[in-house]
Amino acid sequence: MELLERRDTNGVAYLHMNAPERLNALSDEMLAAFQAQIDALADDQATRVVVISGAGKAFCAGHDLKQMQAGRQAEDGGKAYFADLFNRCASVMAGLTRLPQPVIAQVHGIATAAGCQMVASCDMAVAAEGTRFGVNGVNIGLFCSTPMVALSRAIPRKKAFEMLTTGGFIDAEDAERLGLINRIVPAERLEASTQELAESVASKLGAAVKIGKSAFYDQLTLPLDEAYTLTGANMVENMLWRDTNEGITAFLEKRKPDWA
Amino acid sequence: MELLERRDTNGVAYLHMNAPERLNALSDEMLAAFQAQIDALADDQATRVVVISGAGKAFCAGHDLKQMQAGRQAEDGGKAYFADLFNRCASVMAGLTRLPQPVIAQVHGIATAAGCQMVASCDMAVAAEGTRFGVNGVNIGLFCSTPMVALSRAIPRKKAFEMLTTGGFIDAEDAERLGLINRIVPAERLEASTQELAESVASKLGAAVKIGKSAFYDQLTLPLDEAYTLTGANMVENMLWRDTNEGITAFLEKRKPDWA
Amino acid sequence: MELLERRDTNGVAYLHMNAPERLNALSDEMLAAFQAQIDALADDQATRVVVISGAGKAFCAGHDLKQMQAGRQAEDGGKAYFADLFNRCASVMAGLTRLPQPVIAQVHGIATAAGCQMVASCDMAVAAEGTRFGVNGVNIGLFCSTPMVALSRAIPRKKAFEMLTTGGFIDAEDAERLGLINRIVPAERLEASTQELAESVASKLGAAVKIGKSAFYDQLTLPLDEAYTLTGANMVENMLWRDTNEGITAFLEKRKPDWA
Repeated sequence: MELLERRDTNGVAYLHMNAPERLNALSDEMLAAFQAQIDALADDQATRVVVISGAGKAFCAGHDLKQMQAGRQAEDGGKAYFADLFNRCASVMAGLTRLPQPVIAQVHGIATAAGCQMVASCDMAVAAEGTRFGVNGVNIGLFCSTPMVALSRAIPRKKAFEMLTTGGFIDAEDAERLGLINRIVPAERLEASTQELAESVASKLGAAVKIGKSAFYDQLTLPLDEAYTLTGANMVENMLWRDTNEGITAFLEKRKPDWA
Repeated sequence: MELLERRDTNGVAYLHMNAPERLNALSDEMLAAFQAQIDALADDQATRVVVISGAGKAFCAGHDLKQMQAGRQAEDGGKAYFADLFNRCASVMAGLTRLPQPVIAQVHGIATAAGCQMVASCDMAVAAEGTRFGVNGVNIGLFCSTPMVALSRAIPRKKAFEMLTTGGFIDAEDAERLGLINRIVPAERLEASTQELAESVASKLGAAVKIGKSAFYDQLTLPLDEAYTLTGANMVENMLWRDTNEGITAFLEKRKPDWA
Repeated sequence: MELLERRDTNGVAYLHMNAPERLNALSDEMLAAFQAQIDALADDQATRVVVISGAGKAFCAGHDLKQMQAGRQAEDGGKAYFADLFNRCASVMAGLTRLPQPVIAQVHGIATAAGCQMVASCDMAVAAEGTRFGVNGVNIGLFCSTPMVALSRAIPRKKAFEMLTTGGFIDAEDAERLGLINRIVPAERLEASTQELAESVASKLGAAVKIGKSAFYDQLTLPLDEAYTLTGANMVENMLWRDTNEGITAFLEKRKPDWA
């Protein structure tokens, strides 16, 4: 069994974390496996959507604490290792945001610390009923500083602050209400429901989804005029594609588009 | 009938899109009519609030696709026309944000693509029960890149991303919950209720509302200290007006202010 | 009785505004008392959490309007006084954000204008059932420009805009839903419930909470990569503390940490 299994169906790449005995901890090996997939997906024209899920009873419980503690054996007490570790982790998290394909988290059980950060870093998230979310490193003396980056961009500040400083969990209903996830489904519907969402997005004109995601996060932090300059240029480019011409023509003629 | 009718009552300018047969599409002519009104309103001291509504069964279904497709006849395949079109559209959308007067969208039926962008670009929005909102260009191969700018600044990111990449609709309840609109009213109350909100704002000291809106969007993206420098200066200016002195005095004396 | 009473218990500093006859107005004296406490708390290693509450029937009704009107007697009509006043007020509000300790607003009755700004400026807020929130200066001709800074960073824009330009109140339920407060409790539970939240945060490793809050607001406005650089460095530092080593070890050994 691979640590991060990949299965491809109907234009969707399913990445399945497969370390259930460690609650799919983001060990050095797991992070490397994610980075390898991210690097491969960046140039993968056939894949239109990515889904991330986890085996066992939890989606992901964050970093591998045993491995981190072992890192302290180095002469510098682990300083260089930790710096490298958080760099690699940030590269994976920001990498999900920068992938050309939309990334969907399929979440169940718990998503804590860097596991919650991964949910927040995905473009969308579907959760099973009963899933709980937390950035609870503070409970063991390690503030979830890097998970904070993704979390505080996804939900209102006061609630993010509360989660970070109390170390408490929120349930799926609150996660949905706050904007951390898109929808909640019964556990037995989780896989099918996520697949449905993924295939719905995968069925669109791939180039259009790609040009859209490429600008989504960039434009968010630009001043209004610059955001319109960026996205206006994208719309012009998008309009000039053969398939977009066909898509609009088909819509006006009330028929299905004949896309390449 | 004019394409964009204007009626003025009690300090409120009502702009009514009047192309019901085309679901009030933002054609070249409609955009020009909006720009003309925006230019006029920018210097219009008598108008304190602007309301935008649409005739027929929809608020606005976005760009005029037939006209856009006709633009492809040009030698450059429409490139120059499309660039100009999205410039003009962004000028209208950002223009609503920059008007000195608060702008309220009065929405019914559907608001899609640039129509949904217009709702997001208004300062406030009232919707009739049953109204649906979408940025569904992706369904025909044209990602709603410019609507994304306004939408992603109004609602949480994950939900904006979902709307943009699935092309799905959200209902009025979700729109209210997410922050895209301010309130939902029964269809038969839509006009009266929007008028009530508009006249409530119009009844305030106009200069105070104007100085407030002028800083609202600017301060949002400033660092905290700079935001306080900007708005602190505005409060000093505001305090020195004769009518504000009168307003505070009247409040302390428990009487109505005698405003000019 | 002091204007701003301070009581310290279990690592929590309780600041209690004690001018009930003026609805705990932020007079020159009250602002000075807050600034003095903020200055003291900035170097106070023993205090881990700060709670702000108000005596009487309201949390805080904003600036002291009588005192402000008296300021007009100066030769410049109050200009210099007002500029100084809004500087001092911004210094207190931003100071709450910059304190190393989390600050919790314990709110009841009403929180209006700069009183609502204080709630928005605190890191977290607990409110009694029935509490109402408003930035209603516009009703007396003085737009709540500085409260807008804190409010518009806490809740979605369209709702903030509505509150600012209509001068209307929102109830505790809406405040919670929008993200202005964290939770609502029965009035008779307000003090105990806030204390519980405060002591829960105070029970964490103080240095971890401090490093977390110190980056929370800074990273929010940084580009993603810079945010990860800042917080990654914090995680490395955090990992190297003796108490964090102990916290993680204790967690792995399923025992309570033995913190200094």
